[in-house]
Amino acid sequence: MYASRLSGIAPFKVMEVLRRARELEAQGFDVVHMEVGEPDFPTPEPIVKAGQKALSKGHTKYTDARGIPELRREIAEYYQSDYGLDINEDQIFITAGGSGALLLTTALLMNPGENLLMSDPGYPCNRHFLTAFSGASRLVPVSADDGYQLTDTLVSENWNAETRGVLMSSPANPTGALIDDQTLFQLSLTVESKGGYLVSDEIYHGLVYGTQGKTSALHANGNAFVINSFSKYFGMTGWRLGWLIVPAAAASDVEKLAQNLFICPSSVAQYAAISAFLPESREIMENQRLEFQSRRDFMVSALRGLGFNVPNIPDGAFYVYAGLPEGFADSEPFTKWLLEEHHLAITPGTDFGQFQADRHVRFSYAQPLERLASGIEKLTQAIKQ
Amino acid sequence: MYASRLSGIAPFKVMEVLRRARELEAQGFDVVHMEVGEPDFPTPEPIVKAGQKALSKGHTKYTDARGIPELRREIAEYYQSDYGLDINEDQIFITAGGSGALLLTTALLMNPGENLLMSDPGYPCNRHFLTAFSGASRLVPVSADDGYQLTDTLVSENWNAETRGVLMSSPANPTGALIDDQTLFQLSLTVESKGGYLVSDEIYHGLVYGTQGKTSALHANGNAFVINSFSKYFGMTGWRLGWLIVPAAAASDVEKLAQNLFICPSSVAQYAAISAFLPESREIMENQRLEFQSRRDFMVSALRGLGFNVPNIPDGAFYVYAGLPEGFADSEPFTKWLLEEHHLAITPGTDFGQFQADRHVRFSYAQPLERLASGIEKLTQAIKQ
Repeated sequence: MYASRLSGIAPFKVMEVLRRARELEAQGFDVVHMEVGEPDFPTPEPIVKAGQKALSKGHTKYTDARGIPELRREIAEYYQSDYGLDINEDQIFITAGGSGALLLTTALLMNPGENLLMSDPGYPCNRHFLTAFSGASRLVPVSADDGYQLTDTLVSENWNAETRGVLMSSPANPTGALIDDQTLFQLSLTVESKGGYLVSDEIYHGLVYGTQGKTSALHANGNAFVINSFSKYFGMTGWRLGWLIVPAAAASDVEKLAQNLFICPSSVAQYAAISAFLPESREIMENQRLEFQSRRDFMVSALRGLGFNVPNIPDGAFYVYAGLPEGFADSEPFTKWLLEEHHLAITPGTDFGQFQADRHVRFSYAQPLERLASGIEKLTQAIKQ
Repeated sequence: MYASRLSGIAPFKVMEVLRRARELEAQGFDVVHMEVGEPDFPTPEPIVKAGQKALSKGHTKYTDARGIPELRREIAEYYQSDYGLDINEDQIFITAGGSGALLLTTALLMNPGENLLMSDPGYPCNRHFLTAFSGASRLVPVSADDGYQLTDTLVSENWNAETRGVLMSSPANPTGALIDDQTLFQLSLTVESKGGYLVSDEIYHGLVYGTQGKTSALHANGNAFVINSFSKYFGMTGWRLGWLIVPAAAASDVEKLAQNLFICPSSVAQYAAISAFLPESREIMENQRLEFQSRRDFMVSALRGLGFNVPNIPDGAFYVYAGLPEGFADSEPFTKWLLEEHHLAITPGTDFGQFQADRHVRFSYAQPLERLASGIEKLTQAIKQ
């Protein structure tokens, strides 16, 4: 009935889980939420105050389609201070969340029928953006042995005549896996040798718990398209703000698309986000990062103790992607049963691809430790039954 | 180099005008802005206060992809009170401006190669959304004799094998023209008889200066897709908030697209917009409407006095689309000359299509009357030279 792309775009299973969880809560049940990919922390106070001030000052008008210069300058400085990278602010576009950045990138790069390589498991929206523009994702199975990331070998093996490039995510959703520097640099060389585009989803940057420094795809490839967001590390989900870094040569085309498809990102969110880079905001975020790290350690240890298969300790984001314990199969019935019988909400692996998806589930640890402990208690009761 | 759709999407000429106007201002010149399509009024105070309160209360999280129920209920009530229409809130989607609504509609309806009929002149983004999704606009020339709107005859004559429906705008940009009820109902019947979709851009609704009641495409066709916005009448441009009304049968597909392409609209803007329907906000908007009406009357009379061809008095929006006076030709050099030599910024007709575009210009009257008077003074000096 409607356009054919619709058949290639699935609703998020996590949203069905969330909706059912809320129904159960409305019936009086105490449901532990380990399904949603949203930090439980509020937006840092300095950002909220800046938003209120922006409203008082009347910053409620259209802005430049690329975003306000003040914020683009702050982002350029952030790449200088945190990444040691020189990014010209003319390459920086403020967008309505990482979603807006992905939409611009897809519209810019993909002709109908062309594809980008991406990992399976992976974030479902990323492939649906391609479908929306009549392009395709070419899903490449990755496992714990690959560190749940694409490699140059996987890229070479899966590249076909319609492949325009690679869309990678690090830290990745649902696995929390970081790509290591060597793999990134080799992969980038392979993409360049094929004349392809490297698109890097870096929306979980900042939420990293190891000793590794901050590596952006831009370190490996100055022409990479980098998608980032104020949602996760900066705690601004509902404000809908992110950014896109593009090669200088693409800037005028991206601006044209941004003007036509969005007019501009939210002015209020943009003026607020300037304060995301204040030392007092960064300190709040750093404390949250440490809190996430404790939660991760708790979750990995608890899940392993219950027989879940977590081969690698996830390096970042706030997810644990776990193989079902022995004796349990089929992630969709498993998550339904956990929710209905034990009031624990998690996401089935089938939201993230096809490869071994029915044997995996995703736990989000964007909840206070005591709630995670309640969740693990419910899970223990369920598993040990 | 990039996707082929890029060649079909033009940057807004109005943005080039605006950028050059700002350069001239930076050099110390007093430029009168009659180019930009943004109300000069600030967002009504009750909405701003509600936004600040929403921030205090921590409404900074993801919302339902369809928007918060409170706001969707307010919109349903608005259709009841202002239009006498029963709209189920399940048919209402809150979006990032009218842009977000257009994007969802296009992604839902258009396969590559298919087209929608739309009027020339018309708002350039509308055709670029189709291009972005590899569809096409089929531009139908309309003139003052047609009331600058599509008619059932024009629709029948221009419908081809790839036509999926009609995208109409009323009040229209750049002409400010309203479609009259009879034309709308006949056009709708023709579209229905062809099994097509009626898509109606109603983002200037509310800014109407005649005695006509409020007619929505939904009065003519319960299955119309209606795009509306908090930007113009409600004065919330920079907040990026609008809405889309879809047939009940389309709701689940639209939700799927909204989840994947946007996650959700701005939470802050949504909570603020609830207050847009308060009597005290509506009173502010009504006063602004009356002010726009005075400006329109001033502009039409002044432009006619200077020999511009304004055959119909525009019924709504805040634009006058005018044929160049005798002795002047080519709207692009004309607008450049006005800006460079006389510091008056207006938009060339070529931003809005091809039909007689080089002989027309658009004046926006979204400026205080005294600024409009300065603009007309500059124009008089220029024309009488």
